[in-house]
Amino acid sequence: MSKVFVDVGISLDGFVAGLNGGPKNALGDGGINIHNWMFKQKAFLSHLNLDGGETNNQDIDIIERTINRIGANIMGKRMFEEGEANWPEESPFHCPVFVLTHEKRKSWERPGGTTFYFNDEDIHSVLKKARNAAGNKDVRISGGAKTVQQYLNAGLVDEFDVHIAPIFMGAGVRLFEHLDKNKFSFEINNVINSTEVTHLSYKVNSKK
Amino acid sequence: MSKVFVDVGISLDGFVAGLNGGPKNALGDGGINIHNWMFKQKAFLSHLNLDGGETNNQDIDIIERTINRIGANIMGKRMFEEGEANWPEESPFHCPVFVLTHEKRKSWERPGGTTFYFNDEDIHSVLKKARNAAGNKDVRISGGAKTVQQYLNAGLVDEFDVHIAPIFMGAGVRLFEHLDKNKFSFEINNVINSTEVTHLSYKVNSKK
Repeated sequence: MSKVFVDVGISLDGFVAGLNGGPKNALGDGGINIHNWMFKQKAFLSHLNLDGGETNNQDIDIIERTINRIGANIMGKRMFEEGEANWPEESPFHCPVFVLTHEKRKSWERPGGTTFYFNDEDIHSVLKKARNAAGNKDVRISGGAKTVQQYLNAGLVDEFDVHIAPIFMGAGVRLFEHLDKNKFSFEINNVINSTEVTHLSYKVNSKK
Repeated sequence: MSKVFVDVGISLDGFVAGLNGGPKNALGDGGINIHNWMFKQKAFLSHLNLDGGETNNQDIDIIERTINRIGANIMGKRMFEEGEANWPEESPFHCPVFVLTHEKRKSWERPGGTTFYFNDEDIHSVLKKARNAAGNKDVRISGGAKTVQQYLNAGLVDEFDVHIAPIFMGAGVRLFEHLDKNKFSFEINNVINSTEVTHLSYKVNSKK
C-alpha cells in the first residue's frame, strides 16, 4: 500500500519558514536559506525546467527519489497561496495537489501535469482522495507546519522526512509544536548526510 | 591547541530539559527521556561505576571518545545544583569542573578526580582557567542551555555536538534560542546514526 509521508526542510533551530511570510514574501524573512541545499541541485532545478545546478553529492539521490515516489500532494491554504504567486506557470508538482481550504474554487490545471483541487472537507476525506489519485505511489503532506501537525496528530502519517540545514533563523514558523505526542511516536529509519544538509527519515508509529 | 566544544542531547523538538527542572526534578518533567540512548550504554554506566548496560552499537564509540577528550568542564549554576543533589558521591566528570556562579564557595573535591571550582567571573576568564586545567585535552561546555548560548554568542566555541533523540517534549528548556547568528555559523562536520539517536557534529566558525 502506498505511504503517507511528510517531507520538509527546517533550520537547526526548528523553523520551516521565517517571519512575515505571504504571497509577496514566500517562506518568510530569510526562509529561502532553509532550502539552499536543494535550490543549488540540478535534480531540483530541472524539475522547474531550469538549467544548471550541481550534480555532485548525495543530495541529488534524495531529491530524485522523493520526486519519483510522489503520486499526490496535500497542502494547506497558505502554502498554496504563497506558491500560486511565485511558482512558474508549469508548477513544480507534476501530479495532483489537494489544497485544504474553505474557499470554493474549481480545480486549476497547470501545464506539466499539476492539477490543484480545492477541498473544504476534513483531513481524512482529503487524504482518501489523495490516496485514490496517487495509485501505487505515495502521498506527500507538503506543508505548511499546521497541515503537517494536523496529519501527525490524527495518526495519519507513516513516514516523516526532515532535512536539517545548519542555519539559524531565530524566529519564524516552527515545525514541531502543537503536537500531541500521545498520538504517535517516531522511530529512526535512516540518516543521510551531505556537506550542506542532514536528511533524517523516521518511521511514524500511530498510537490510535 | 585544545578545542572548546559543546556536547548536549536534545529532543527532536529542540528541548534539552523538561518543565519544572530543579534539584528535586533533575532535567525537568520527562527530560530523562532525552538521554535514554546514553543511560542504557555500558560505556556511560561504567563511568558512574555502575554495572550492566548495552555494548552493541555505535553509540558506545561516541560516548567513550567524548569522555576521553574532556580535560575540563564548564557548567552553569543551575546545572550544577541539579547535579549536586543527584550525582553519586563519585561525580561523573573525573576532571576539573568550572561552575559559573555569583555564589562564593570554596572548591569542592570529590572522590574519583572531580573538583568543582566556583567562579564569579566573566565567561572569558572562566574559559581561560578551564583551558589551563585541560592541558592538551578539550574543554567541554556542559550546559545548561543558557551557558551554551552565552559561549556561542561570545564566539568561543569551536565544535558543537548534538545528539537528537527521536522524541517530543512539547515544552521545556530550548537549546537553540537567544542566539546571535551574526556571531557564528555552523558547518556540518560529521553525522553518525544509531537506532536510538542521531549524533550531529558541527564545526563552529566564529564571526568575531
